[in-house]
Amino acid sequence: MGALEAHEQWRGKIGIVGRVPVTTMEEMAVAYTPGVAEPCKVIAEQPDAAYRYTRKWNTVAVVSDGTAVLGLGDIGPLAGLPVMEGKALLFKACADVDAFPIMLDTKDVDEIVRTVRLIAPGFGGINLEDIAAPRCFEVERRLQAELDIPVFHDDQHGTAVVVAAALTNALMLTGRQPRDVRGVVSGIGAAGIACAEMLLDMGVGDIVMVNRSGIVLSASSEAQQALIARTNPRMITGSLAQALAGADFFLGVSGPDVLTADMVRTMGPDAIVFALANPVPEILPGDALAGGARVVGTGRSDFPNQINNVLAFPGIFRGALDCRASKISRGMKLAAARALASLVPREQLNETNLLPTALDGRVAATVAQAVIEAARQEGLARV
Amino acid sequence: MGALEAHEQWRGKIGIVGRVPVTTMEEMAVAYTPGVAEPCKVIAEQPDAAYRYTRKWNTVAVVSDGTAVLGLGDIGPLAGLPVMEGKALLFKACADVDAFPIMLDTKDVDEIVRTVRLIAPGFGGINLEDIAAPRCFEVERRLQAELDIPVFHDDQHGTAVVVAAALTNALMLTGRQPRDVRGVVSGIGAAGIACAEMLLDMGVGDIVMVNRSGIVLSASSEAQQALIARTNPRMITGSLAQALAGADFFLGVSGPDVLTADMVRTMGPDAIVFALANPVPEILPGDALAGGARVVGTGRSDFPNQINNVLAFPGIFRGALDCRASKISRGMKLAAARALASLVPREQLNETNLLPTALDGRVAATVAQAVIEAARQEGLARV
Repeated sequence: MGALEAHEQWRGKIGIVGRVPVTTMEEMAVAYTPGVAEPCKVIAEQPDAAYRYTRKWNTVAVVSDGTAVLGLGDIGPLAGLPVMEGKALLFKACADVDAFPIMLDTKDVDEIVRTVRLIAPGFGGINLEDIAAPRCFEVERRLQAELDIPVFHDDQHGTAVVVAAALTNALMLTGRQPRDVRGVVSGIGAAGIACAEMLLDMGVGDIVMVNRSGIVLSASSEAQQALIARTNPRMITGSLAQALAGADFFLGVSGPDVLTADMVRTMGPDAIVFALANPVPEILPGDALAGGARVVGTGRSDFPNQINNVLAFPGIFRGALDCRASKISRGMKLAAARALASLVPREQLNETNLLPTALDGRVAATVAQAVIEAARQEGLARV
Repeated sequence: MGALEAHEQWRGKIGIVGRVPVTTMEEMAVAYTPGVAEPCKVIAEQPDAAYRYTRKWNTVAVVSDGTAVLGLGDIGPLAGLPVMEGKALLFKACADVDAFPIMLDTKDVDEIVRTVRLIAPGFGGINLEDIAAPRCFEVERRLQAELDIPVFHDDQHGTAVVVAAALTNALMLTGRQPRDVRGVVSGIGAAGIACAEMLLDMGVGDIVMVNRSGIVLSASSEAQQALIARTNPRMITGSLAQALAGADFFLGVSGPDVLTADMVRTMGPDAIVFALANPVPEILPGDALAGGARVVGTGRSDFPNQINNVLAFPGIFRGALDCRASKISRGMKLAAARALASLVPREQLNETNLLPTALDGRVAATVAQAVIEAARQEGLARV
């Protein structure tokens, strides 16, 4: 059965479930009127009690305006709903988080921020999803400032955490330290910026940002500008080919077919190629290997080394919710990446086994635990 | 176990459930990337297909600003959450509707309307709940005008439907026609106005509206004004006691202890008293009976004849969703009331058995069917 037929049969990938019996009048009188007035009154006096008496503690809004959905682009909030239902499904399956899609019928930053702020009381966290750059940066920054619950743009940070974990293990496999390698990141959208920042945060010494026009020297947004100031220490100019010469790794978060086997040949020894464009990567794994790459990863499940957000977001939110973190900090994301990398120990690491799979039941709990510990160390945990 | 302890044990009365297996990579590839792109693309071309490929068709937002919660008043959106979770629980248990609480951190009409409009794509219907009058009227009217999905303020219309059903059966029991009776409605808030309008719509000839100051002659909102123009045909003035003299029924949607046994004694023969204030009704059933009332109903489950919204809203939304009604019309509400009344046939009707109970499994399906038929007759059904 194809995906379209499956969706038609399902008519929705998630639903609501009652967690409480209401089969007798007595049960109704506890769960609804008059009994329900009791927790209401306590919460009115102590707002914090909402975490004790309601589902707020475990509930995440998956918020999207439908402007950057998968590889499909701006298809609108209604057409983005199947993706957000899928995301909520994975939240539940991987980490028992109750996630609910909120599809926003606006592309205006002020309206997005205001709407999410106004619906926030019922939620314990906000997962922003598939919101186009550069709008996504301002939306996230402003919501993080205005809300006291974690706000996390998964296209940026989820991707970055998994990329950081994959690079950590690829470097361990090839016997190198982050500070000694240099890399090229193709794509300076939301994911490209977040990945580059995270790799810099984990200590990579030299990153060059590249887009369709070649090495990026000037920024078109604040987020790009902040990143550019931290990259390209050798101040090189030119095309992707020039950036790649002698590079240790390539990370593609751009589009299909930007990299060729010939280009890979110009990279340094033990080259690492992560080509994440979906469904058609920047280079097919066979071509990258033919060009001499030692380790190759993609976003796809039908090649080895899938670099997939689902390895990160369920566990990150599980951890943030469990310790009631006020935000998801850089330290928490780095801890998540380290924990994810640690799930493939040194002796099991090889060219086609960099990361655990999305089906590995240990992933979310391990990531969550690391996130909780980091939050506690930073004083961001509230329980 | 008390209600507070129960809520603490539950930590949430509803949750999200996955409706689709994601235990293999193949299943993930259908429910999430890359398969999910297929329904997205179809919906982008044909918005209507969202009803085929997502849960929109069965999903209702229970929207509240927490300003008129139960008898507690303006306790805010966070403190209102236990009630809205309870509502969602009943939606699921009674009619298999997937309802989700949306708690709004604003009391501003423009902001409420805009926020609900912006999050509407993911929903098949909007249940407004516990929003204070007169704000609730404008919010509902504007949302009904702006959205193509049903918008229904349950405190108004749910209550009105059940009251209309109860009065229908009380009149049948006592051998009277709506056009021949006159009644007094105590309370001219959201519920009082909606109930009075519905009783007028079902043919009651003479209704007098009363509030704390006595018979209401001047309006403080448009909604009150429209109603006042249709009521008090004898143009009487004075107190509640004066309004009640010779009246056939009393409907209280106001507050505790406004009616006395002595006042009931001045009503006409076979007097009907519905005292819905919660938890303390306008008059206790024992006092109303002592005053000579023949039929007495309250909002409480511990007295006979409970007049409870849960008899209406699940079936009304079930019907509206199933036929994809663009709105919930007056005709659909009257049909719901008639269907609800019909569940206690003439031969089973008596002074303590006016309505089916909330646990009667036939209620939602019967109401839904009547709503669908009425929607079809009015050309409001889209499937």
